[in-house]
Amino acid sequence: MTETATEGRKIDHVNIVINEDVNAKGITTGFGSYHFEHDALPELDMHSIDLRTTFLGKKLNAPFLISSMTGGAAPTEEINLQLAEAAQALGVAMGVGSQRAAIFDSNLASSYQVRRVAPDIALFANLGAVQLNYGYGIEQCQRAVDMIEADALILHFNALQEAVQPEGDTNFAGLLAKIEALCRALPVPVIAKEVGNGIGSKAAKRLVEAGVQAIDVAGAGGTSWSEVERFRQPSKTGQTTAGTFAGWGIPTTEAIKQVRAALPTIGIIGSGGVRSGLDIAKAIALGADLGASAAPNLLAQNKGGSDAVHAAISAMLDQLRISMFCTGAADLAALRQTPLYRVS
Amino acid sequence: MTETATEGRKIDHVNIVINEDVNAKGITTGFGSYHFEHDALPELDMHSIDLRTTFLGKKLNAPFLISSMTGGAAPTEEINLQLAEAAQALGVAMGVGSQRAAIFDSNLASSYQVRRVAPDIALFANLGAVQLNYGYGIEQCQRAVDMIEADALILHFNALQEAVQPEGDTNFAGLLAKIEALCRALPVPVIAKEVGNGIGSKAAKRLVEAGVQAIDVAGAGGTSWSEVERFRQPSKTGQTTAGTFAGWGIPTTEAIKQVRAALPTIGIIGSGGVRSGLDIAKAIALGADLGASAAPNLLAQNKGGSDAVHAAISAMLDQLRISMFCTGAADLAALRQTPLYRVS
Amino acid sequence: MTETATEGRKIDHVNIVINEDVNAKGITTGFGSYHFEHDALPELDMHSIDLRTTFLGKKLNAPFLISSMTGGAAPTEEINLQLAEAAQALGVAMGVGSQRAAIFDSNLASSYQVRRVAPDIALFANLGAVQLNYGYGIEQCQRAVDMIEADALILHFNALQEAVQPEGDTNFAGLLAKIEALCRALPVPVIAKEVGNGIGSKAAKRLVEAGVQAIDVAGAGGTSWSEVERFRQPSKTGQTTAGTFAGWGIPTTEAIKQVRAALPTIGIIGSGGVRSGLDIAKAIALGADLGASAAPNLLAQNKGGSDAVHAAISAMLDQLRISMFCTGAADLAALRQTPLYRVS
Amino acid sequence: MTETATEGRKIDHVNIVINEDVNAKGITTGFGSYHFEHDALPELDMHSIDLRTTFLGKKLNAPFLISSMTGGAAPTEEINLQLAEAAQALGVAMGVGSQRAAIFDSNLASSYQVRRVAPDIALFANLGAVQLNYGYGIEQCQRAVDMIEADALILHFNALQEAVQPEGDTNFAGLLAKIEALCRALPVPVIAKEVGNGIGSKAAKRLVEAGVQAIDVAGAGGTSWSEVERFRQPSKTGQTTAGTFAGWGIPTTEAIKQVRAALPTIGIIGSGGVRSGLDIAKAIALGADLGASAAPNLLAQNKGGSDAVHAAISAMLDQLRISMFCTGAADLAALRQTPLYRVS
Ligand SMILES: Cc1cc2nc3c(=O)[nH]c(=O)nc-3n(C[C@H](O)[C@H](O)[C@H](O)COP(=O)(O)O)c2cc1C
Ligand SMILES: Cc1cc2nc3c(=O)[nH]c(=O)nc-3n(C[C@H](O)[C@H](O)[C@H](O)COP(=O)(O)O)c2cc1C
Ligand SMILES: Cc1cc2nc3c(=O)[nH]c(=O)nc-3n(C[C@H](O)[C@H](O)[C@H](O)COP(=O)(O)O)c2cc1C
Ligand SMILES: Cc1cc2nc3c(=O)[nH]c(=O)nc-3n(C[C@H](O)[C@H](O)[C@H](O)COP(=O)(O)O)c2cc1C
Repeated sequence: MTETATEGRKIDHVNIVINEDVNAKGITTGFGSYHFEHDALPELDMHSIDLRTTFLGKKLNAPFLISSMTGGAAPTEEINLQLAEAAQALGVAMGVGSQRAAIFDSNLASSYQVRRVAPDIALFANLGAVQLNYGYGIEQCQRAVDMIEADALILHFNALQEAVQPEGDTNFAGLLAKIEALCRALPVPVIAKEVGNGIGSKAAKRLVEAGVQAIDVAGAGGTSWSEVERFRQPSKTGQTTAGTFAGWGIPTTEAIKQVRAALPTIGIIGSGGVRSGLDIAKAIALGADLGASAAPNLLAQNKGGSDAVHAAISAMLDQLRISMFCTGAADLAALRQTPLYRVS
Repeated sequence: MTETATEGRKIDHVNIVINEDVNAKGITTGFGSYHFEHDALPELDMHSIDLRTTFLGKKLNAPFLISSMTGGAAPTEEINLQLAEAAQALGVAMGVGSQRAAIFDSNLASSYQVRRVAPDIALFANLGAVQLNYGYGIEQCQRAVDMIEADALILHFNALQEAVQPEGDTNFAGLLAKIEALCRALPVPVIAKEVGNGIGSKAAKRLVEAGVQAIDVAGAGGTSWSEVERFRQPSKTGQTTAGTFAGWGIPTTEAIKQVRAALPTIGIIGSGGVRSGLDIAKAIALGADLGASAAPNLLAQNKGGSDAVHAAISAMLDQLRISMFCTGAADLAALRQTPLYRVS
Repeated sequence: MTETATEGRKIDHVNIVINEDVNAKGITTGFGSYHFEHDALPELDMHSIDLRTTFLGKKLNAPFLISSMTGGAAPTEEINLQLAEAAQALGVAMGVGSQRAAIFDSNLASSYQVRRVAPDIALFANLGAVQLNYGYGIEQCQRAVDMIEADALILHFNALQEAVQPEGDTNFAGLLAKIEALCRALPVPVIAKEVGNGIGSKAAKRLVEAGVQAIDVAGAGGTSWSEVERFRQPSKTGQTTAGTFAGWGIPTTEAIKQVRAALPTIGIIGSGGVRSGLDIAKAIALGADLGASAAPNLLAQNKGGSDAVHAAISAMLDQLRISMFCTGAADLAALRQTPLYRVS
Repeated sequence: MTETATEGRKIDHVNIVINEDVNAKGITTGFGSYHFEHDALPELDMHSIDLRTTFLGKKLNAPFLISSMTGGAAPTEEINLQLAEAAQALGVAMGVGSQRAAIFDSNLASSYQVRRVAPDIALFANLGAVQLNYGYGIEQCQRAVDMIEADALILHFNALQEAVQPEGDTNFAGLLAKIEALCRALPVPVIAKEVGNGIGSKAAKRLVEAGVQAIDVAGAGGTSWSEVERFRQPSKTGQTTAGTFAGWGIPTTEAIKQVRAALPTIGIIGSGGVRSGLDIAKAIALGADLGASAAPNLLAQNKGGSDAVHAAISAMLDQLRISMFCTGAADLAALRQTPLYRVS
């Protein structure tokens, strides 16, 4: 994929996510199969529930991240700014979309730069891990971080998304050594993230051994990137091939459980199909430190700008608080100890 | 929530339950998963089946309770009287709705006073447990009992219902000690009851240790109070938040089993989504002393007054009798010994 | 139920079964959950497959019985004759419907008398077991047998069917002793049969100890007699009560397995929702000696008389033969040894 | 079935498969229940994935076979040629349909002869195994092989298909001995193949002991031959009887697993409802050497000739490659070691 193609692709993606059904099919996150046990007598004041937490050394008012989405084209600047305003107001974290376009063409940098409206948030830069095989190195990663004054760099792993594109960047050979070098060189932490097919315990362990400090599982059951790319394929067979993988991946709940069991102390972001504060509560009870979502925030922004994003995330946090209240968990440490029951 | 708001809310509730779909969603009572084994040769006369029982020292013709629903506003007086007439005629128990309104404004007391038509029934007063944190104490509880010449006081626990209301009474801290004091002081027994999300074994044990004499599990799968409140939320996000919890709670069958296993001798009312005499039979075989339902009786009253309530409950008792006949259970003691098989 | 009411009721039943959906609901026979393993190399000639068997000492060309259905009213005579013609031509067994009406009024006897067209078939008389508590005794049973020159007497057990009728004959007390006396006195074997709710191992054992020589499980999942009676209830609540039990009973497959496990040598008829020769094959592999069905034969007779019944049963026997061919079973003894796999 | 009837039947079959829903019903291949675990970090270059393999000594560019379908009537010649062109271009294997017609009438031979367009492919002759009981012997088998310059002979086993036809060839007695003699005499390998109901471990073991060198399981869940024959039955009861077996057979995944477990080194073709390269990947991970499909290739040919077949198979191979990439399997040997998880 050429650099110049990237910009149009970014706008395509946003429009497809807004207008089409790009949810995974034939697979679910698994959140629906887990239930908390209701506590009729929680013996706490809901208003005193404490959602604050720390992630990679940065304080958050609530355990939530707006997942990496966009930037790199003029119309995406407004999106990023409005997402960032809501994040700043609520004290939650945010990631920007892949900065590859802006590293190639620095005129595009401003579409990612949200510090002017969000000076305090935990902000994460973003690059595709596979780009380390396509001409990007430590220097470009550093520039991505500097460009937005980021607190960490997210390297995203999107093997399936690349594979369903005839011209996709599908040389994933030898990446781990390069990631190891990058983690050693970069002054900020590196987060490894999928884009909707999940990072399981095996990949997570290799990544953490290479120096990655947190895993965003970005599991299956929410936005499916093979489904998004399906809408971009011109040929019928290309569409069929992309559609074949609409149910591919490790369900979000499964990924969180696997990674937490394998890596008891690593930072974990539970994302991929997180659609309510109840899902966030379940993600945390299963082992995540933060919950995160992407598409729902874009849809809110598209409908009503920053206010709508703020309202949507506030509602999620209310739901998280209610979930904690009705299980008697006064803070996130207590929520982490709250058992979940699997029902099929 | 102010006292004056309560009256309008009570009428809202009745209208919403009558006109909207307020059933729990994404969760069931579990009654459908349990089956009795048919006995082709019951060797008993169905007409000799004995449904009589005693609950908290009071004799009943049949193991059924009309669950707490209403009062506190002029139009609800007729509802309560007609429910009570049917209860008196059939010899079953009845609870009135929360008496908080009438304790604040004694003019409203008559809407709860059904002894003139139901001198003999087991009759239960009702107050929200959380009100013990909002200015109500032993005195108000005693007044609730006296107001209707009740045989017992039901304290209802409705954490989720309060939580989904932005102004809900959500300070549940320190309630247990107050309940303990209340149980010691009150001359009638105290029954702890949920409103559709279930009391499990943990909460039940704490409540019984505090002096509560019976548990009405009011489990999930029937009327959902977060669904009822959803219809009262003005904002879209408020509705979404309430709707997030339509599947929250301990299924009625699960709650009955848990509480009976933990507390072999306590009085248990099996309610929440009880919709037939077959459900009552299953509730009893799982460990309950009485079955109870709320919404179906309101719907019957709304359609055809006392006669319709009488007919609906009679039909439920016929179904209970048929269930006992076809399993060869001559009385409730035998029904309690009848095995249930779980099929998914 | 008075004797004179019986005649009209019999015609009602036939019409309801023909015109309404009287299948059990919320429960299945279980046949769909069992699978044979296909044998790609059966090493036998399908035309040499042997379906012959002996039941209660009587030879049959195939292991099939037309279940007890009708008689006792003028229009039913033709039905019985046409069913019997098909049975005679195919060499399968047949039962007539309850002969109670004809014992009360001997003018009705001819509606049951099919020997003129079916001199050779295994023919079974029929009476409700509960009638032994309502004025019928050994003498009446003997008359039922003599009336049709029967090879055996079927006593049917229909507790649920009676129970959902307000005036049903629901005194089942003390029947077992009377059955024991009957079995001892009667010169022909007695078969105990349900009518669609199943005989399980417990009832079967008691019946066999009392002298019954075969069990027709008549399990749940096919025609439901509470559903049939639902269509005869005038009141809404009566209909609701009958409808409550549309899923009641022991599934046919479960009943066959239970009874065979408990009683390794007794004669077992697998009936209740048998709808194909594949179901018959499964019934036999699960432990039955014969398969049987009722409603499908009535529907065929209603559509096209004796020829249609003949065609329908022939097709079932073809399907049985194909099932045996594709599992490599050359005769019923081999089929009985053929494993079934449960898949849910 | 007379020889002359065969030709019309062949055209019927093609038309029915193109125009009707002849999929198995009430049973699935099981592919949907198996999942690979996504590897977010495959550490390989998708373009270097190697699909090459060897089957019965013949080299293939990819592990795929166009299953035996047609020939024996004028219009089928074009079908076979176009399938063969695609096979030649892609380097995959192909089987022709049953050659019985052309052995009877050598004028029909050309409809099977595809070597002129496909000089290099692995090409398999085809005859019904049961014909060894209907006048065919080693000589006819040798002629089938010679007729098309085949690399192997497929003997197909279609007991159910024959059984649902009133005049079907259903004498399968004593076949094994004849197969043993054939395998010993024939200079090319013999492959035993079902047609959509599956070869399990028991039949496979007997066949391999008789000298068969590979098993094409042709399991249940794809094209059902009792369904195809259903459309050819003139009578309603004949249709019902065929329809009874729409769910009969050993699911493809189950058959592959069984046969591989029983016969660790035999050649296995995984076919029956293979509809994507993901299915091929699963078939191989479960134990197959090749994947194969029939109906989809016929449908493609019917829509767009050789090009469409080429495109359809190419897409399947792309999907296979993507499946391998996203599980980190660089070649088929690695894919065979890749675990599959069963989810129901
Ligand atoms: C419009 C859009 C653009 C995205 N772009 C990126 C990206 O550039 N980098 C990245 O790591 N993930 C990207 N993602 C993936 C998301 O971060 C997230 O992992 C995925 O959508 C699953 O979360 P969801 O189900 O909440 O949408 C994008 C998602 C969306 C909806
Ligand atoms: C209109 C209405 C009003 C109710 N008000 C009360 C109440 O004041 N106090 C209480 O304990 N429960 C109240 N409930 C809850 C019921 O007692 C019961 O626990 C719940 O509805 C579940 O039972 P069901 O599924 O049979 O309706 C009310 C229910 C209804 C339908
Ligand atoms: C119209 C009709 C009348 C029946 N009457 C009798 C009867 O008199 N005696 C009896 O034992 N069973 C009677 N049955 C029950 C059947 O014998 C059988 O047990 C039941 O219908 C379940 O079989 P099926 O699902 O094949 O219909 C009757 C069934 C039908 C459909
Ligand atoms: C039109 C058509 C004709 C077929 N004819 C034959 C045949 O002659 N010989 C044979 O072994 N299988 C024959 N088959 C069966 C296929 O080879 C294959 O086993 C079966 O269709 C299942 O595969 P599928 O689900 O991919 O279609 C035929 C299939 C089709 C669709």
